[in-house]
Amino acid sequence: MTGSIERERLIRGVAQAARGAARIIAKATAEQRKSALSAIADAIDTARPQILAANAKDLEAGQAAGLSAAMLDRLKLDDARVAGLSRAVREVAAAPEVLGKVEHAETRPNGLEISRVRIPLGVIAMIYEARPNVTTDAAALCLKAGNACILRGGREALESNRALATAVQAGLEKAGLPAETVQLVPVTDREAIADLVKLDDLVDLCIPRGGEGLIRYVAEHARVPVIKHYKGVCHVFVHAAADLAMAERIVDNAKTQRPGVCNALETLLIDRAVAATFIPRIVARLGSRVELRGDATVRELGGTAIRAATDDDWSAEYLDLVLAVRVVDGLPGAIDHIERYGSNHTESIVTTDREAAEQFLRDVDSSTVLVNASTRFADGGELGLGAEIGISTTRLHAYGPMGAEGLTTTKFVVRGSGQIRP
Amino acid sequence: MTGSIERERLIRGVAQAARGAARIIAKATAEQRKSALSAIADAIDTARPQILAANAKDLEAGQAAGLSAAMLDRLKLDDARVAGLSRAVREVAAAPEVLGKVEHAETRPNGLEISRVRIPLGVIAMIYEARPNVTTDAAALCLKAGNACILRGGREALESNRALATAVQAGLEKAGLPAETVQLVPVTDREAIADLVKLDDLVDLCIPRGGEGLIRYVAEHARVPVIKHYKGVCHVFVHAAADLAMAERIVDNAKTQRPGVCNALETLLIDRAVAATFIPRIVARLGSRVELRGDATVRELGGTAIRAATDDDWSAEYLDLVLAVRVVDGLPGAIDHIERYGSNHTESIVTTDREAAEQFLRDVDSSTVLVNASTRFADGGELGLGAEIGISTTRLHAYGPMGAEGLTTTKFVVRGSGQIRP
Repeated sequence: MTGSIERERLIRGVAQAARGAARIIAKATAEQRKSALSAIADAIDTARPQILAANAKDLEAGQAAGLSAAMLDRLKLDDARVAGLSRAVREVAAAPEVLGKVEHAETRPNGLEISRVRIPLGVIAMIYEARPNVTTDAAALCLKAGNACILRGGREALESNRALATAVQAGLEKAGLPAETVQLVPVTDREAIADLVKLDDLVDLCIPRGGEGLIRYVAEHARVPVIKHYKGVCHVFVHAAADLAMAERIVDNAKTQRPGVCNALETLLIDRAVAATFIPRIVARLGSRVELRGDATVRELGGTAIRAATDDDWSAEYLDLVLAVRVVDGLPGAIDHIERYGSNHTESIVTTDREAAEQFLRDVDSSTVLVNASTRFADGGELGLGAEIGISTTRLHAYGPMGAEGLTTTKFVVRGSGQIRP
Repeated sequence: MTGSIERERLIRGVAQAARGAARIIAKATAEQRKSALSAIADAIDTARPQILAANAKDLEAGQAAGLSAAMLDRLKLDDARVAGLSRAVREVAAAPEVLGKVEHAETRPNGLEISRVRIPLGVIAMIYEARPNVTTDAAALCLKAGNACILRGGREALESNRALATAVQAGLEKAGLPAETVQLVPVTDREAIADLVKLDDLVDLCIPRGGEGLIRYVAEHARVPVIKHYKGVCHVFVHAAADLAMAERIVDNAKTQRPGVCNALETLLIDRAVAATFIPRIVARLGSRVELRGDATVRELGGTAIRAATDDDWSAEYLDLVLAVRVVDGLPGAIDHIERYGSNHTESIVTTDREAAEQFLRDVDSSTVLVNASTRFADGGELGLGAEIGISTTRLHAYGPMGAEGLTTTKFVVRGSGQIRP
């Protein structure tokens, strides 16, 4: 792009087209949206050669630019992954309808029949980085909920995203719906994000997904509402009354099953009452696979080979095979620690004491709280939402994993017979 | 205040105290919150002399500053109005509990029991102008929903608001809850608002209530989520199949029963099919009490004494005995007009044609849509929400009137028996 005025004009044009498409898609029937989703899945399958060719260009440019192996892996598509993309779209098509549902209904003493009916949000802006799957996942969820969407992926994935968006638009047109229902912003300057998230007359919601830097940039520039989470510093608390064998399995799973994701365990809290028993067991179980960082008691009971934790470790999101471990004084000590250092994402207690479990579930303020289960279940699919468009650790509109229903709102529908206010 | 750093520090201190109180109030029982609301109502009654004395100071200063009669009326308290404030708090106390409700519950195939439980939002910032009743109404609704609140009223009402906040805090303390649950910001510089709405680490939601200028100022400076509506350009559409006697009553009520409020009628749309019959009738009914501004057909059929409407009239919120009137081509013409000029607030159709009614309810995008009823019913109390903290014409979190339940969110609560992710 040459100038900022030109860029702003282009972004506004995209958003205006999205607003127009949103009006049409909001009035489409469930059947029309469903057949569009099927057509999109078909179009992705058909365009697989073009999608893989575009992805190869991105990978080549990424290698030349020195992207990390992890980044290149996130970017990479192959036959199986493209098949996974179309399968995910078909799953969204098959999921239950979210629009038109009546949430509350009552008849007032004056005879007015009041109901709240679920409707689309409107225009959703998705801001993301190098994962091309977000392009089709987000498009499908937005369409399911009757919304238009504007996709702004990272420059690393531009060619892949273009090819995927072309397939999505082909599917929309085949189903007789406007191609502008799903648009890819072709400008990868960071300023294009700022231009987009300022348009509060045209965009109803922005969902940034990616690293903390991207999310802070969006939050700083946004005039439209933003659903976000900065990080997941998730805790497991092993309570005095825990089944310690279960605690071992849960801690192991929460930490090691997929350490690079936001619902992985980052800090293990151990009740002082079971510290002497549990610490040697968890060190034996994890010590060779996970770098532990402990407080003084942990090192005393687990061995001074354990690195000493600093205050920074209590708020660290390692996303790696590293685990902070701390001994706390009972349930109140655990709750205090989480209140101070937690990220409102996901926390789990392991205990056989029902009362302690209920107190933890009630008093811990996070968006997902669990008892006797791995933190890895804090995920839209696992919690029964179907596919997930994002996770919110701020409390407005959605708190925790957010699915298609999170992309809707309700309006008041009132049926009268001539009522006037006295 | 002397300097901006001092002001920022003071505002941050207020917000930090609110955050601390929010943690405590979120854990209070329904019974505790209810008895605090009763104690607040009692304290308002007891402090009536002090409240009226403080209000007299505000009124005197307002007169000296040349406030309009309407503004002084909004500001004024008397015995009956103070009794109304405490009665409103008692009504909130008596309303159904909103916290702890399980919104969805299911057991997953792996045995995990998932539920979504209603919890407080946290810290609410209310920004408002000269109406002292907002001080106690907002405090009561926030407390009902387990939130702390920060109140920032206009400088015109500062003494009244201080006296009311003192009564509220006395009630909280009597019930054993922290006084900081409800705090009044004692700084009336406009910059104090900007300081407050930037604190996204301490404030969960901001609700501005007042003129468009105030709301735009908040929206421009906010880093925290904002629930707002700029204006209410509400429509009544008299359809070809309307009962015209009913249409007359509804139009009259919607326009004249209380013209200064946001759910009052501003533009009347008349189906061309009934224009020749209905226009003379509505001119005869309203002409002497309401200034009409019509398009060419309206003036042709209703008399050229009717002022010609300009394009500005279609988007005007008069808040006065003025009504824009336009003839449209059937239901599609009405929907197009509303889509173009409406404010997403409230629109009503008058018709005996059930199919037309249902199409209007479905296709008009506003937060409240009605058939055969006055727009004046778009109000939390009338719609069954209990008291109303505000109205939202943006779609996230709340759309339309918002009551105590709008001041809550849900968290995911998961009960397991040792489940791990495979």
